Amino acid sequence: MASVRPSLQLLKPPFFRSNYGPRGLLRVDFFTPKSAGRTATGERPSKADTLTIAEKDALTKQESGITEQSPMRLRMEAFIKQYQKEIVAALEKVDGKPFLVDSWDRPEGGGGISCVLQDGNVFEKAGVNISVVYGRLPRAAIAKMRVNHKALDPDVDSLEFFAAGLSMVLHPSNPMAPTVHLNYRYFETADEAGNSNAWWYGGGCDLTPCYLFDEDAIHFHNTIKAACDKHDKAYYPRFKKWCDEYFSNTHRGETRGVGGIFFDDLDETEKDQEQLFAFVQDCLGAFLPSYIPIINRRKDMPFTEHEKQWQQLRRGRYVEFNLVHDRGTAFGLNAPGARVESILMSLPLTARWQYMHSPVQGTREERLLDVLKRPKEWV
Amino acid sequence: MASVRPSLQLLKPPFFRSNYGPRGLLRVDFFTPKSAGRTATGERPSKADTLTIAEKDALTKQESGITEQSPMRLRMEAFIKQYQKEIVAALEKVDGKPFLVDSWDRPEGGGGISCVLQDGNVFEKAGVNISVVYGRLPRAAIAKMRVNHKALDPDVDSLEFFAAGLSMVLHPSNPMAPTVHLNYRYFETADEAGNSNAWWYGGGCDLTPCYLFDEDAIHFHNTIKAACDKHDKAYYPRFKKWCDEYFSNTHRGETRGVGGIFFDDLDETEKDQEQLFAFVQDCLGAFLPSYIPIINRRKDMPFTEHEKQWQQLRRGRYVEFNLVHDRGTAFGLNAPGARVESILMSLPLTARWQYMHSPVQGTREERLLDVLKRPKEWV
Repeated sequence: MASVRPSLQLLKPPFFRSNYGPRGLLRVDFFTPKSAGRTATGERPSKADTLTIAEKDALTKQESGITEQSPMRLRMEAFIKQYQKEIVAALEKVDGKPFLVDSWDRPEGGGGISCVLQDGNVFEKAGVNISVVYGRLPRAAIAKMRVNHKALDPDVDSLEFFAAGLSMVLHPSNPMAPTVHLNYRYFETADEAGNSNAWWYGGGCDLTPCYLFDEDAIHFHNTIKAACDKHDKAYYPRFKKWCDEYFSNTHRGETRGVGGIFFDDLDETEKDQEQLFAFVQDCLGAFLPSYIPIINRRKDMPFTEHEKQWQQLRRGRYVEFNLVHDRGTAFGLNAPGARVESILMSLPLTARWQYMHSPVQGTREERLLDVLKRPKEWV
Repeated sequence: MASVRPSLQLLKPPFFRSNYGPRGLLRVDFFTPKSAGRTATGERPSKADTLTIAEKDALTKQESGITEQSPMRLRMEAFIKQYQKEIVAALEKVDGKPFLVDSWDRPEGGGGISCVLQDGNVFEKAGVNISVVYGRLPRAAIAKMRVNHKALDPDVDSLEFFAAGLSMVLHPSNPMAPTVHLNYRYFETADEAGNSNAWWYGGGCDLTPCYLFDEDAIHFHNTIKAACDKHDKAYYPRFKKWCDEYFSNTHRGETRGVGGIFFDDLDETEKDQEQLFAFVQDCLGAFLPSYIPIINRRKDMPFTEHEKQWQQLRRGRYVEFNLVHDRGTAFGLNAPGARVESILMSLPLTARWQYMHSPVQGTREERLLDVLKRPKEWV
C-alpha cells in the first residue's frame, strides 16, 4: 500500500476475459466528475473514432491476447497478475491455509483482486493485492506530477491515465518472524489521440522485524541487491537510502524497520522502458527468495509472552507510520470512493500503545531501537 | 489531545512554587529559534525594562499569588490545575488504583504534568494532562491565526503567546463502558510591551461507546447541554453539530462516537472574556457528573469474548481518527521537539484491524454503526 500513486481505485481488469463487455470498458474518473474531458453533450472533444487507452487495450486483448509486442500497460498487468498467483501459492505452502480471493468493483466503476489470509497458521494477516486502473487526471494532479515528469502536457484540463500495481503486506504471528511489505507499480498517461505520453515505475520492498536477526537482514538485502546489481550497480545503494528515508517514523526518530529498497518516478530520464520493466520484474522476482527462507526459519521459533507484547508495541509503530506518514495511504483515504478495506489491509491484526514504554538496557529490544535510530549497511 | 493548538509543548508551570527560579521563566520558542524577536545582539527590540508575559506572570505569582484580579492566563492555569486534581481523584475512586504523576521538561525549555493510569481495574488506559506554554509564534503562524482573529497584528515577525489546556482520554477495559475524551484550552498573544492582545477559548468533550446504551448518550448530552444552556441556549445545538463534524472518520463515513460538544476560536466577537471563562469552567465542571454515573453502571457488566473483540475493532477506528484526521495530533507530531508520548497517550492500549469485518444484521454492533453513520439528536 505504501505509495501507490494514484491509490487503489481499481478497474475490474479487462484482462479477465469473463468480465469483458461494457463494464470492462468503463473509464474511471479520478478526482473529477464523469463528464471531465467531454463536451457538454457528453461527446469526447476529439474526433469520434479516437479510442481511449482502456478501449484500445480491451480490443488488443480480444483480438491478439497479450504478447511481447503489446503495450507496456498490458504486459505489466499480465506480469503482476501472474506474480500475484505465484506469491499466493508460495505463501499458502508456508502457511498451510488458503487465501481468500476477493475480486471487487467500485460503484463508480473499477475493481481489483485482493488475496487475503487472516488468522492463518503462520500469518496473522497477509494481503496480496493487484490493481489496474484506467481513469482521468485533473489539471491540479497533472501540475503536481509535472514536477517529476516534464513530458506531461501542461496545457490540458485532464489526461487519461493508466496505473497497475501489486501491493503486499505480511504480518506473521510469531514475534521472531518479520513483517514484510512490497509494492511495485507502473503509471502512464495518454494524449487525446490515445497515444502513450509520460510513464514511470515506482516501488520497493522492506522488512520490519520485532526481533532483529542480523542474518535475516543480511540475506534480505543481499537478495535485493543482487537483483538491482544486474541492472545498475548504483541502484541498490541509492534505493536502499531512499527506503530508509521514506519508511521513517520521523516523529519518533526511527525507521519503520531494517529497510530494503524504495524508488519512484523512474522514467525515460533514468533508463528506457524495457530496461526499467526488466528491473522491476527482477525486483519482484527477488521477493520470494528474499523472504521465504526467513519466514521458514522463524515461524516456529519459541517465544515468551514478553516477546509477544513487544511485537504488539512494534505493530503500533507500524500503524503510526502507515496512518501518519505514508503518502499512499493518505492519498488513498482522501480519494473519493476509495476502497478503505484494501488501503488499510496493510494494518496489523492487533497493535498496542503503552505510555512511556522503554526497553531494558542491553536487551534485544534495545538493540532493535538502536538500529532503527541509526540505519545500518547490511551488505 | 484533540485539537490543542498549539500542541502539548509545555512549560513547567511557574504555578509550581517549587519550580520557581530561572527555569520557570524560560521562554519557549515555538517553531522558531530562541533568538526570534530579539536583535542581533540578543537584546529585545523594545525598551530594556519591558517584561514578557512569562516574566510578568512569574512575578505576579511570587508577589500576590493568583486571585480573581490576576490575568486570565493565571486564572486559567490555576483552574485547570485544580480540575486535573479533582478529575484524577474521582477517577482513582472509580478505579481503585492510583495514577502515576509525571512532571516533565522539554530539552528546549518547557514541561507539563501527565497523570496516567495503565492496566487499572476499570481503565485500560487513562490520561489526564495539563499544559502551560509560554512561547513565540512566527509570522507564518500569525498569518494563519489571523483568519479567525483579526486582533492579531499582521505587521510583526513574531508574537509572544501563552497557551494552557487540560486534555484527557479514558479507555475503560469493559466493552460496555464508553471511551471519553475531553480538552479545554485558552490561548493568548501579547504585544511587544507585554500587553494581552488576541485571546480565545477552544475545547469540547465527546463519548465513544462500543456498545450503545441510549440512556448513557442521553445522560451525557443532557449534562453537557445544561452547562451550555446556562450561558447561551444556542451553544449546545451549535457545538453538538460542530462535534459531530469534527470527530468524523470521513474515510469511513462514520463519526468517532456519539459526540458531545466541540468549539474553537471563541473570542471577543462571541462574548466577553469573563463570560467565556465562566462557560469553559462550567463545561469542565460538567465532566464528572456527565461521565461518572456512566462508568459506574458499565464497569462491571458481564461481557463475552465476541464483545471484547468488537471493542478492539472500534479501538482501531479510534486510532484511525486520531492518527489520520485529528489536526491537534498532526500538528503536535510535526512540531519540533514535541513530546510524542504525551500526544499519543490518547491512543488505546490495544486495537485490532480485521479485513472486511461487518456486523451481523440486527445486532447491537450494527445499530452502533447506523448511529455513527447518521448522528442522532440525544436531547
